[in-house]
Amino acid sequence: MQQELTNKLQQLYEDALSTCQQGSPADYIPALAKANAQLFAVSIASQQLTTQLGDSTERFTLQSIVKVISFMVATEARGVEEVMHYVDLEPTGDAFNSMIRLESSKPGKPFNPMINAGAITIASLLHGTTPNEKVDTVLDFLEQLLHKRPSINGEVFLSEFDTAHRNRAIAYHLKANGFIVGDVETALKAYLLLCSIEVTTQDLAKMGLFLATDGEGAPFISPHILKITKALMMTCGMYNASGKVAAFIGIPAKSGVSGGVLACLKDATIEGHHGAIGIGLFSPAIDDVGNSVASMHMLKQLADHYHLSYF
Amino acid sequence: MQQELTNKLQQLYEDALSTCQQGSPADYIPALAKANAQLFAVSIASQQLTTQLGDSTERFTLQSIVKVISFMVATEARGVEEVMHYVDLEPTGDAFNSMIRLESSKPGKPFNPMINAGAITIASLLHGTTPNEKVDTVLDFLEQLLHKRPSINGEVFLSEFDTAHRNRAIAYHLKANGFIVGDVETALKAYLLLCSIEVTTQDLAKMGLFLATDGEGAPFISPHILKITKALMMTCGMYNASGKVAAFIGIPAKSGVSGGVLACLKDATIEGHHGAIGIGLFSPAIDDVGNSVASMHMLKQLADHYHLSYF
Amino acid sequence: MQQELTNKLQQLYEDALSTCQQGSPADYIPALAKANAQLFAVSIASQQLTTQLGDSTERFTLQSIVKVISFMVATEARGVEEVMHYVDLEPTGDAFNSMIRLESSKPGKPFNPMINAGAITIASLLHGTTPNEKVDTVLDFLEQLLHKRPSINGEVFLSEFDTAHRNRAIAYHLKANGFIVGDVETALKAYLLLCSIEVTTQDLAKMGLFLATDGEGAPFISPHILKITKALMMTCGMYNASGKVAAFIGIPAKSGVSGGVLACLKDATIEGHHGAIGIGLFSPAIDDVGNSVASMHMLKQLADHYHLSYF
Amino acid sequence: MQQELTNKLQQLYEDALSTCQQGSPADYIPALAKANAQLFAVSIASQQLTTQLGDSTERFTLQSIVKVISFMVATEARGVEEVMHYVDLEPTGDAFNSMIRLESSKPGKPFNPMINAGAITIASLLHGTTPNEKVDTVLDFLEQLLHKRPSINGEVFLSEFDTAHRNRAIAYHLKANGFIVGDVETALKAYLLLCSIEVTTQDLAKMGLFLATDGEGAPFISPHILKITKALMMTCGMYNASGKVAAFIGIPAKSGVSGGVLACLKDATIEGHHGAIGIGLFSPAIDDVGNSVASMHMLKQLADHYHLSYF
Repeated sequence: MQQELTNKLQQLYEDALSTCQQGSPADYIPALAKANAQLFAVSIASQQLTTQLGDSTERFTLQSIVKVISFMVATEARGVEEVMHYVDLEPTGDAFNSMIRLESSKPGKPFNPMINAGAITIASLLHGTTPNEKVDTVLDFLEQLLHKRPSINGEVFLSEFDTAHRNRAIAYHLKANGFIVGDVETALKAYLLLCSIEVTTQDLAKMGLFLATDGEGAPFISPHILKITKALMMTCGMYNASGKVAAFIGIPAKSGVSGGVLACLKDATIEGHHGAIGIGLFSPAIDDVGNSVASMHMLKQLADHYHLSYF
Repeated sequence: MQQELTNKLQQLYEDALSTCQQGSPADYIPALAKANAQLFAVSIASQQLTTQLGDSTERFTLQSIVKVISFMVATEARGVEEVMHYVDLEPTGDAFNSMIRLESSKPGKPFNPMINAGAITIASLLHGTTPNEKVDTVLDFLEQLLHKRPSINGEVFLSEFDTAHRNRAIAYHLKANGFIVGDVETALKAYLLLCSIEVTTQDLAKMGLFLATDGEGAPFISPHILKITKALMMTCGMYNASGKVAAFIGIPAKSGVSGGVLACLKDATIEGHHGAIGIGLFSPAIDDVGNSVASMHMLKQLADHYHLSYF
Repeated sequence: MQQELTNKLQQLYEDALSTCQQGSPADYIPALAKANAQLFAVSIASQQLTTQLGDSTERFTLQSIVKVISFMVATEARGVEEVMHYVDLEPTGDAFNSMIRLESSKPGKPFNPMINAGAITIASLLHGTTPNEKVDTVLDFLEQLLHKRPSINGEVFLSEFDTAHRNRAIAYHLKANGFIVGDVETALKAYLLLCSIEVTTQDLAKMGLFLATDGEGAPFISPHILKITKALMMTCGMYNASGKVAAFIGIPAKSGVSGGVLACLKDATIEGHHGAIGIGLFSPAIDDVGNSVASMHMLKQLADHYHLSYF
Repeated sequence: MQQELTNKLQQLYEDALSTCQQGSPADYIPALAKANAQLFAVSIASQQLTTQLGDSTERFTLQSIVKVISFMVATEARGVEEVMHYVDLEPTGDAFNSMIRLESSKPGKPFNPMINAGAITIASLLHGTTPNEKVDTVLDFLEQLLHKRPSINGEVFLSEFDTAHRNRAIAYHLKANGFIVGDVETALKAYLLLCSIEVTTQDLAKMGLFLATDGEGAPFISPHILKITKALMMTCGMYNASGKVAAFIGIPAKSGVSGGVLACLKDATIEGHHGAIGIGLFSPAIDDVGNSVASMHMLKQLADHYHLSYF
């Protein structure tokens, strides 16, 4: 059921929209740099209701948000114990593409699956021999969840692949230390394809609801894996503002440099929504640490107004 | 009301007690090294009930657990904005006594108040000119909360003060970068006195309940500061296992090298306890990262059996 | 003219030979691990005389020693100014394969051409489009100098190429920061081919003599480039013992993990040798930092006995 | 014998003088910031002759140049082996006041005596119980060498002592790791007093000549210690330009942030000077890495014109 918009939600949306100009689209990937900085969409999904604000049919690439999905899929496939042999679950305080800790902290195991190092390791752990087979395990999951198979944005993929020097350096560093299973280029290509999966905020809200309910409905992910996933979102999902997001918003969330944000609420009330709630947000203008400015503003206002903090 | 012990809680306690031998008391502070490694106490407090398991009248020093208290007191006194001018709220992945990031990450602001650097900065922000005046603001808070004024263990304080070279190095490094307010030795001495405050698990459980209720009853701390505090416990309260504790236990908690652990539950059921719950644990044998082995084992079993995870 | 062996040189050789067992051949490259740890050769060349001790016709791969040669050839081809746009001339104190400084020290320019990062950058600066063309510029230089064209040890090259994950990580990291000219894989392959060039200690002694004379005879390298090269050998030629080698031996020298050492003396007297002298040493058993144990022992005894220190 | 100035030396001096404006006096120590940026003095001393250019009677504090002297005095007193138990002889590539390596490189031994960490350790190794007793061992050495007892600039000392937070942090970090002998504050005060010893370029030239001759005349320092000292000057004497100074000038030298430079030549000819030569330079305007601009310019021109490079 589509919710009729309340004045309050509409007002919060308008307020957040006006903050777009405080950021700008990611410029290190050419295909992202040309995004319309004025776009802003918010979708809210609970088990009975959905709410759409703004450009909720606009498609964008998942970028780092996919780290949440690929971690769940790989961990369901391999088991927590095996995954943790290759990647830890600790926040770092470092930049998402930092390599220092891979050398300074023996034996060089990536600290968590939300930084690039950990996510490339996770891509190597996805079932399948080729990049496409690996990506298919994630697309299969998303198709079951969204009732449609997401597309991959080929232009964005190629744009990232051509300039993936830093990620390739990370991948070979991981391989040197034994934290890539199988072929390095396969893992790297799979990772970059995964980043290029296209979604809308409506899709993100559904993903958030799936997480919030501990996996009710199809597809199947073990509840303890979903809890680990949400803990990772809370401790290291929002780049180098993760600690402040936990402190001032208090919601498990994951952002991507394309401007998307995925959030989930275990038990909340937002106007007509009650219980488990998923939220998807998107606005391409990002701040210094990589988080969408309008999305963060909206999430903070929602958290304050509807008392959403987990703490 | 004192709870009659259920078979289940007693069984979980016995199971956890048997894990003591997997750790050993902290050895870098002489006065801690001689602790009885077989001690183990658990206290659970809700608004109607208290439960005691084991040596719940045994006194031990707060050590790092005091970082939670001093952060609340300093932030209530100074305001969030002023405190954040001197210390960030981000997890690090570094050792609790690491100095590297003070130099490598400009301008050298400590990343959070749960590492030594941040806690020394917080000590410098406590009201008062002398170390004792600063410590009194924390003791006043604890006296209001516990209805008794905690003592300071002079032997432990002197033992730490004599070997505080690393903490003194941290303090002067912070001063060099402008992140100590006032006199360095005053802040350092205040910090070490705070670490030496003595409590029991019953006291920790009361502190946990205070946090869990967002500050019901005396003393007064603003609810938004309590939420920030609990977020810090979740993202960086358990030394370098904070991420894994969030993933596998999912409860805001803070540990100290003396073997104490403070935890709080927003809304849970543990036998006769319902709603907000505080938990205090103590067992001197700690693991490699500094967390009490039996306490962690107990907390994990409690979380699994009573579904306590925030996620 | 081949020198008749003096008792003194023979005695120093025997003394050094007995130290072989204190090290062991490099084990991270399979093809090197199987070297005969008892081999030890020393060659001394001055403008009038050559002296051979031990297995001076034994061939081994240059490994890091080639960094000296490729730096000279690339710098003669490109000029000092252009080369220094891509690589600095500062010692680091880091491991030869460290990547930390590429990230921590903006803009990520390799600190010197004697560490792997700098040497891969230098390989990218060698004239030529393909790896073989680049390598040929170095082989051309060596052919002019040695009056024979050195071979490349294909087994060692393939062994290193298959396990070059760390070097590949370094190469892509350099590319990400703009310090590789042209194609990354081309530079990397050229670098690994260069490491696999085979020489004898007699060849090393000739190279040392060439450096010692500031480039007398063919081929041509500008004297100021040879001075820079010798300064680099003194400040960072002997892995993480470079400072101690300067302090206790005081001779510009460059070692490789295959067990070779190249040294040069501006103006010295060693038995019948007078003036500029080149020394080549080889013994596969290396110490913790990567220097040949017997070669270092020999060089220290030579320096002490014949007063060879530059200081 | 005082040399009559040649046109060539006078011209090189004038050229160098004109580069003063490219730098500015050190501003982190208030008492240094007010130096006259136009001062420039050069003194050259050989065994038969002295040459003075510019303000060669102007007094300035040794600052980091004293690290050379205190290393010699402490090592003569303690022996090389004992000193190396506390400080290594390796260059670092780090800033002179960096602390990162004290934590990242186990067991935290300072890498060399030319960075602050190593120099504070050396100060702790000087004989004597009080700061003044330790400083007296260095002043005794200088009095024997210079035939007058240098004074200590009390204003500079107090200015540095008041703002010595970073150096104090380094000192306590060293103590925590076992690399300070005795009392920390004693070592730190001794170090800062040593930095405040006042000299002229004439004094520096005499020190350089002493080093150049391997210690001819009084006082006595073992020749092998002098060789180690000169090697340290070559590999790490000129802050983060040490490698480039070795490459482009090629002379063992040590600079201080007050604008002084000490250099020594084993066997050279500069106009009427032949053989061992000492050079003292002073100009308060320093560059980004801490070296006196005019002094560096002069030294480079002298090296080029008189072929002074050791390589």
